[in-house]
Amino acid sequence: MTDRILSPAQFEAALRAIGAERYHNLHPFHKLLHGGKLNRGQVQAWALNRYYYQHQIPVKDATLMARLPTSELRREWRKRLVDHDGDGTGPGGMERWVKLAEGVGLDRAYVESTAGILPATRFAVDAYVALVRDRSIVEAIGSSLTELFSPGIIAERVEGMLKGYPFVTMDTLAYFKPRLTQAPRDSDFALAYVKEHARTAEQQEAVMAALRTKCDILWAMLDALYFAYVEPRLVPPGAFVPKES
Amino acid sequence: MTDRILSPAQFEAALRAIGAERYHNLHPFHKLLHGGKLNRGQVQAWALNRYYYQHQIPVKDATLMARLPTSELRREWRKRLVDHDGDGTGPGGMERWVKLAEGVGLDRAYVESTAGILPATRFAVDAYVALVRDRSIVEAIGSSLTELFSPGIIAERVEGMLKGYPFVTMDTLAYFKPRLTQAPRDSDFALAYVKEHARTAEQQEAVMAALRTKCDILWAMLDALYFAYVEPRLVPPGAFVPKES
Repeated sequence: MTDRILSPAQFEAALRAIGAERYHNLHPFHKLLHGGKLNRGQVQAWALNRYYYQHQIPVKDATLMARLPTSELRREWRKRLVDHDGDGTGPGGMERWVKLAEGVGLDRAYVESTAGILPATRFAVDAYVALVRDRSIVEAIGSSLTELFSPGIIAERVEGMLKGYPFVTMDTLAYFKPRLTQAPRDSDFALAYVKEHARTAEQQEAVMAALRTKCDILWAMLDALYFAYVEPRLVPPGAFVPKES
Repeated sequence: MTDRILSPAQFEAALRAIGAERYHNLHPFHKLLHGGKLNRGQVQAWALNRYYYQHQIPVKDATLMARLPTSELRREWRKRLVDHDGDGTGPGGMERWVKLAEGVGLDRAYVESTAGILPATRFAVDAYVALVRDRSIVEAIGSSLTELFSPGIIAERVEGMLKGYPFVTMDTLAYFKPRLTQAPRDSDFALAYVKEHARTAEQQEAVMAALRTKCDILWAMLDALYFAYVEPRLVPPGAFVPKES
């Protein structure tokens, strides 16, 4: 089995198949969110919890950058930090996400404190940072490949949320527009990198496992939201309790 | 606020209050488990996922021991490794848990592979190891204080499961008997340690926060079980699907 290395095209197809099976666009919470089926409090819970993911993305990227061996690679990866933290003039992705959360009625300080997020959100997101810190570089880069699948979900989300929720405007969703060009740029690079650097069947399998874990992380975040705020609606001690339904 | 240090007795009371509010004996999944309300597949899912917790307990304890500064402290903590890994003659806690899982009808190799556990279980348990690795020693020791509350849940569990499930025997539950003496011995030590070593209000608050996080970890594991196997029964991709209901 160990010599069954995939061709670059086969490897790419195998990675894309993981997304087709496990990416969180398939999760019932997203179907409700994009279908306009949630109430305002549930949309707030989503925005609040997802903020912690946005908050840790630059941490994740800096963690990886600290391990990259060349200026060329670090420069490439630095684009992601610029996207999320901003360039000091316009807002970056994290600030745009705060605006989204404010747009659906949350208080900035409460969002930024992350005090009300579900513990499961924190554990899942922290597992992403740990993966990038602890596994090989090619696996760490491979775990970012969920971005291959994100333009589809973004288009669906923006359209669905604008139609579905009177309290959501294009302005509220400003986070997503730059992501439509940033994500393909980033995933093109990451895909080319893993295709070149996963040189054995074991390395290819490890990259696929890392991408599966990343899908599990995104999926587990939605499981926790669904559990606490949709059904059976059992909010864990200390987590956000919506005021609005 | 920073000079509001609690007396040792007040500090202990505050720690116990965290358990009274947040320990997982209060979780609806445990009410179902102990009340005989689950089917065999659901009990299997519990045993399977909880195995990963057992599996990581010695990892957690070794991680902490690696940071303890004296032979005396390490000897004290080493008892926990003996309890879980065994002494090479009788079974330790981990082996007893495998027996429990086999007793409810699971295959040993499948359990030990941890292949079927919920991703949320992995993320939550790994967060426990990370806490013990990354926070101060007094916080790491404080996070073990859920053992203050475990004798109560164990008594309730053993009685409830024996009454509630024809497929559960005293032999299957052999894991729990030694825990009734080990846990108080360990929590007596840990409680005395944090009372002595948390010397400022900030340190006391940090220990309380660590204990809350530990409660969140145990709680999140049950949230994930409830979500996947009780309601709404949405098993994440790749996780255990019970054959028996």
